[in-house]
Amino acid sequence: MRTLTVALGTRSYPIYIGEQLLARRELYVPHIAGRQVCIVSNERIAPLYLDTVRATLAADFQVSSVVLPDGEQYKTLAQLNTIFDELLTSRHNRTTTLLALGGGVVGDMTGFAAASYQRGVAFIQVPTTLLAQVDSSVGGKTGVNHPLGKNMIGAFHQPRCVVIDTATLRTLPDREFSAGLAEVIKYGLICDREFYAWLQINIDGLMTRDPALLDEAIYRSCVNKANVVAADEHEGGVRATLNLGHTFGHAIETAQGYGEWLHGEAVAVGMAMAADLSARLGWLTTREVDDVRTLLTRAGLPIAPPYDMAVEQFLALMAVDKKVLDGQLRLVLLKAIGEAIVTTDFPLATLQACLAAR
Amino acid sequence: MRTLTVALGTRSYPIYIGEQLLARRELYVPHIAGRQVCIVSNERIAPLYLDTVRATLAADFQVSSVVLPDGEQYKTLAQLNTIFDELLTSRHNRTTTLLALGGGVVGDMTGFAAASYQRGVAFIQVPTTLLAQVDSSVGGKTGVNHPLGKNMIGAFHQPRCVVIDTATLRTLPDREFSAGLAEVIKYGLICDREFYAWLQINIDGLMTRDPALLDEAIYRSCVNKANVVAADEHEGGVRATLNLGHTFGHAIETAQGYGEWLHGEAVAVGMAMAADLSARLGWLTTREVDDVRTLLTRAGLPIAPPYDMAVEQFLALMAVDKKVLDGQLRLVLLKAIGEAIVTTDFPLATLQACLAAR
Repeated sequence: MRTLTVALGTRSYPIYIGEQLLARRELYVPHIAGRQVCIVSNERIAPLYLDTVRATLAADFQVSSVVLPDGEQYKTLAQLNTIFDELLTSRHNRTTTLLALGGGVVGDMTGFAAASYQRGVAFIQVPTTLLAQVDSSVGGKTGVNHPLGKNMIGAFHQPRCVVIDTATLRTLPDREFSAGLAEVIKYGLICDREFYAWLQINIDGLMTRDPALLDEAIYRSCVNKANVVAADEHEGGVRATLNLGHTFGHAIETAQGYGEWLHGEAVAVGMAMAADLSARLGWLTTREVDDVRTLLTRAGLPIAPPYDMAVEQFLALMAVDKKVLDGQLRLVLLKAIGEAIVTTDFPLATLQACLAAR
Repeated sequence: MRTLTVALGTRSYPIYIGEQLLARRELYVPHIAGRQVCIVSNERIAPLYLDTVRATLAADFQVSSVVLPDGEQYKTLAQLNTIFDELLTSRHNRTTTLLALGGGVVGDMTGFAAASYQRGVAFIQVPTTLLAQVDSSVGGKTGVNHPLGKNMIGAFHQPRCVVIDTATLRTLPDREFSAGLAEVIKYGLICDREFYAWLQINIDGLMTRDPALLDEAIYRSCVNKANVVAADEHEGGVRATLNLGHTFGHAIETAQGYGEWLHGEAVAVGMAMAADLSARLGWLTTREVDDVRTLLTRAGLPIAPPYDMAVEQFLALMAVDKKVLDGQLRLVLLKAIGEAIVTTDFPLATLQACLAAR
């Protein structure tokens, strides 16, 4: 097991990474202040791991659980209410701890429920998808979607610890595994050129889910994420670079309806588009853009947006993105491989050409 | 105009108290960072004041508005979504400022919408009821109700300023005016014996809405509230004393369905019950309890719970209160007039006798 710390002063917390951690009671107990725990999971993950986690905690705590439907289309304010229903029905008080057992949707919803229940209670992240393990479980971004925009309703609320059991990836469907790799590749692109080179060499081994390679990729991703979050918790600056590909990607997800495209798939397309736009601005070579596309493709990811998305639809959906300030569309682009910047400084015509290219 | 400060370090903010402040542009402008403002009001208040506030801000900002239905029964997660609908439809970004124009329900919902929209934007409180002016607009408690408990879903989110225009009280219905006086009396009971004595002398003048007396009562209430909030923003200690009467009161509100009883009415009954229980524990004299009841009655407030509420129902509803910790019911009681404490140290039988007394 390897341990990392997200350094946020009094709200610092550990990330535990290793195999077979789900049933390690001693990882959870120091981070649970009260006597109550509510495990939140979904219909796919609960049958696999809920009993294990419940049994691990049952001797020490009053444990209840909520099982949500599986999928991004259920990441809504209405579904959030089912968590509050359970918390109130089972009389969870202000000292309760919520435990998110599942992927990014479960983590984001559980975190927002914890941020809002009785104006804020503790929570623990136990991510079971690659995407959640390398990205969404770390950093305290929580929330739900709105029909007019993704993650538009939420809170910054940091977990007390993150328990990453890499053995849970064995049951992950291929498509979701690839979606997680999109965020892994993202860290290489935005801030870790050496890791990017490592990924180019090891992508085939990662696709076979080689445990040692996976462990390294998750650890390295979490190190990068933890550093960025510690430097800029509330996204006033550098944290925005973590959104590479996300403004394009959110537009795709919103246009297609949540649940059709996986988040990581949309981000992969978005990163390919961001790389393309960066090249059009003279910052990347065509060769580098091709290499990005190749790496994404080898990771089983799409690199082109849906055929039926017109340039105007893209622009309209990108305009409601959280990164729009006073009407100015801000994008995360690449000054170089391993060096992302947030900028409003690109000609509209160049963006339109990028959006029109297929 | 008088100005007070809620001292919370970098999140400190002013409270402006005076007549005809609604149209004073210079009070709002320094507290609005971006170019967008969304005014949230309700169906009763909007026809009276929305145009005035909109006109005051229209020259400097892009102003949109949301009008909610009026009443505690609409303080729900579903109604909250209508605020998000407007914000997203009108493309409000992270620098937007929400402005709550109305009573406690509007203020609590607007504050929670501001806390959650894009994970947190700014907001301003412009309370138009006595209750909101002396209590709910100050201190950053925001949220909505759940069918199983009041204010169970929310956030701590401080406003950028509070603009209290006492002229708005002229249009306030008598019943709501009295409900506001319940919270005014509360400050006397919990921490300001001198103010309590002042209220005993001046209650009849206050009931005629004498402007000078009202100004003094609102100012003094806000001073007390600001001091308590500055000492304990997140209710780890002394702030809990502000909930005098609220645990009993929330039980009444939940039992009767939100909207039947006004919050201040339920709190008035709760304070009478808390005073009664304090006397049963030997802390107050019967004379003092009678004086509390007399003051509440002269303020046009009820002092007894609904006939049809059984002791068991009271206990069950009080058990889901946010002040329950690990199964222990905590109540705010009075060690003396002007001295509230939070305690779990009372015999159940004494509480039951208090709940049974009518």
